[in-house]
Amino acid sequence: MLTGNHCDTLYTAEYVVTQNDNRDIIRKGAVAVSGDSILCVGHSDILTILYPDARRVELGEAAILPGLINGHTHVPMSLLRGFSDDKALMDWLTQDIFPQEAKLTPELVELGAMFSMAEMLRTGTTAFYDMYMMERSVFRAADKIGMRAVIGESVTQYFPSLTCRDAEAYFELVREQSFEWMNHPRIRQAVVPHAPYTTKPDLLQKCYALAEETGALFGMHLAETRGETDTCLQQFGKRPIDYCHGLGLLSPISTFFHVVEANEEEIALLASTGSAVVHNPASNMKLASGAARIDDMRRAGVCVGLGTDGPASNNAQNMVREMYVASLLQKVHHLAPTACPAQAALDMATRGGSATLHDPCIGTLEPGMRADFIALSLESPNMQPVHNVVSNIVYAATGAETILTVVNGQELYRDGKFLTCDYEALRNEIQQAVTWVKTS
Amino acid sequence: MLTGNHCDTLYTAEYVVTQNDNRDIIRKGAVAVSGDSILCVGHSDILTILYPDARRVELGEAAILPGLINGHTHVPMSLLRGFSDDKALMDWLTQDIFPQEAKLTPELVELGAMFSMAEMLRTGTTAFYDMYMMERSVFRAADKIGMRAVIGESVTQYFPSLTCRDAEAYFELVREQSFEWMNHPRIRQAVVPHAPYTTKPDLLQKCYALAEETGALFGMHLAETRGETDTCLQQFGKRPIDYCHGLGLLSPISTFFHVVEANEEEIALLASTGSAVVHNPASNMKLASGAARIDDMRRAGVCVGLGTDGPASNNAQNMVREMYVASLLQKVHHLAPTACPAQAALDMATRGGSATLHDPCIGTLEPGMRADFIALSLESPNMQPVHNVVSNIVYAATGAETILTVVNGQELYRDGKFLTCDYEALRNEIQQAVTWVKTS
Repeated sequence: MLTGNHCDTLYTAEYVVTQNDNRDIIRKGAVAVSGDSILCVGHSDILTILYPDARRVELGEAAILPGLINGHTHVPMSLLRGFSDDKALMDWLTQDIFPQEAKLTPELVELGAMFSMAEMLRTGTTAFYDMYMMERSVFRAADKIGMRAVIGESVTQYFPSLTCRDAEAYFELVREQSFEWMNHPRIRQAVVPHAPYTTKPDLLQKCYALAEETGALFGMHLAETRGETDTCLQQFGKRPIDYCHGLGLLSPISTFFHVVEANEEEIALLASTGSAVVHNPASNMKLASGAARIDDMRRAGVCVGLGTDGPASNNAQNMVREMYVASLLQKVHHLAPTACPAQAALDMATRGGSATLHDPCIGTLEPGMRADFIALSLESPNMQPVHNVVSNIVYAATGAETILTVVNGQELYRDGKFLTCDYEALRNEIQQAVTWVKTS
Repeated sequence: MLTGNHCDTLYTAEYVVTQNDNRDIIRKGAVAVSGDSILCVGHSDILTILYPDARRVELGEAAILPGLINGHTHVPMSLLRGFSDDKALMDWLTQDIFPQEAKLTPELVELGAMFSMAEMLRTGTTAFYDMYMMERSVFRAADKIGMRAVIGESVTQYFPSLTCRDAEAYFELVREQSFEWMNHPRIRQAVVPHAPYTTKPDLLQKCYALAEETGALFGMHLAETRGETDTCLQQFGKRPIDYCHGLGLLSPISTFFHVVEANEEEIALLASTGSAVVHNPASNMKLASGAARIDDMRRAGVCVGLGTDGPASNNAQNMVREMYVASLLQKVHHLAPTACPAQAALDMATRGGSATLHDPCIGTLEPGMRADFIALSLESPNMQPVHNVVSNIVYAATGAETILTVVNGQELYRDGKFLTCDYEALRNEIQQAVTWVKTS
């Protein structure tokens, strides 16, 4: 796979964790980047000879790995990080979150999104799948800062929403945005009804048809809680996944978030339809939803990615921490220390992210893939000694070890500096916004 | 409580989280230090006037809080971080850990201890309760680096150990060390049998008597797994806590680590005897031991602290992460989002640490307490906005926000620099030690 193409930049580090099919880890490795893509991955002494004229970035005692992919978040909600915690889900939503959300403006949504993206870049995430309201602002923010994203305006049957007066206006918005963002190198639209319990069956089916019509992806919260299962059984005589399958929503363009409540038959349905699942262990623990059967799903052939959920219920958007939590939760839930080993957690955050964002060109470091990668420093005490670099990344890293975040060949974060946003200005704005959110 | 005493240094920051009985949080606060103690805590503009001649350390957008207290660890085991993961407990111990431990030397133990202490200082921990082998090296390391510590040579009925040829030699060692470290301002000895299933009842009782004789504390792993409970029932006809109570081991000088297996009656026993418990959520999850009933224990009046367990089974010694994991585990285990709120997690890591180390002079920021405190920067994206500083510390911080760690009035870590050890040299040594551990 060594080609004669021009190498713009050669990144070298003590370890390159490729996440390719063999899970090769290259000691004293290098990643050669050409434009938006990876040209070559190999030993640094060889690549240095092959590409003598390339710009060199020597990362030293660090590990280069594929950028982590946050499969489920609500980026504007950084505005409400820590605003309300430790409450039952419905109290949390109705007493604290909804009243604040009612005050949101497109400007606040864009600010929250920019701030969340800064947080993700700072902790090694290169791509995310977002759903919220007024997402026009999120498209704009992701375009500006340079991250890769699947973005969807969330919809329920309750109109008017903050964004649309009725369902027709929602369909119109999606169609407009499909033209606006068609063929964008990093950004893709999704049609994302909120959940089966907030969206009637005919609207769900119309949303799915709209996704097909506009070439968008389809995503939805699904089977998150026992309460949702009970309601669905009561209303439709079926459990949520089965019910959605009956509506034709399970398909290779579909990604379902949470999926805590899945039995054997439903796991088989998810696998056979090619549906993807995003696991949100920290949110499922914090909101006390329970433990999704991700090991079972993976064994059954379901594509499983990993996500943080929004910063109001996590309260960070830190995929390094999420990998750790994912592994711990499976182990304690199954009372099996062999459950979800470090490699499985890293696979979900990288290769699984490719599947859940339905983007085959991300998630591994291989020639021809998009140049989405990060470097974690191994210099801090928690990252030493290195018996097993994947173990240190999943079980010992904090995420703050991130020293480089590259998306589509562009450096967005390096050595404490944000290269595509004015972070100090953002921080001042969000501190002021908070006062506004609270008092207005 | 404002006195006329001399203030050496005045630390100011945006927030001072006192952890006093009222849990006062002072906006634009200050901590005045005199020698090894806190002289005064209050508003920075007032303290600035009171102590005009004090050295000033302005920490800006940061939170000062009591140093976190790691109630249970095995510091030399940083040598084996990531050496073996994702295995069943007995395979992990017998196949991987024990054979490596057999090769340990006092020099390696001191190196591992120094490295772990660097990790703890870097993530906001000021004090710890350690048990392992060849702990003479750990006493020396803690003395050198300046941390506060309770340190105990672990003992079982299997002799010769790496340290002692027989039980008499162990008793002699403890007596020697009690003279060596008597009245040390930061270091105290504990007598720590490994566990009820590795130490016969008469040796357990002799150990407890030895603790009383030498003025040491008494600590032990207890009720960690279902298997331990079953074995104890089989061997002694009692569950572990009840069994130890029968031996007279539950007392106000005792601290028990893990305590996953405790029923209502046993919780009442722990409370009525004044025994302290250290909760190790990450280790209990990673080794699949289960969830300790810490909310129930706290309600029953048991003193509960928090610990990481050793770096071979966590794999970090990061008390900020441990607070987060503690809260998540309780919530998902009880399927109650109200379980172990942020404040309870912070209480366990500070005030609970005081109880579990049996040191009434640490754990809060109040006049007369030892000057053990840390500062966490609030500048990184995960720490903003600040709706609730305790929520951000427990739910959003990584530990890497630590910009200052002060123990007994002495600055040990500040702005990325270790002030009482040569960290670069330690890192080189541990990288070399790893090769030795593996190949020899």
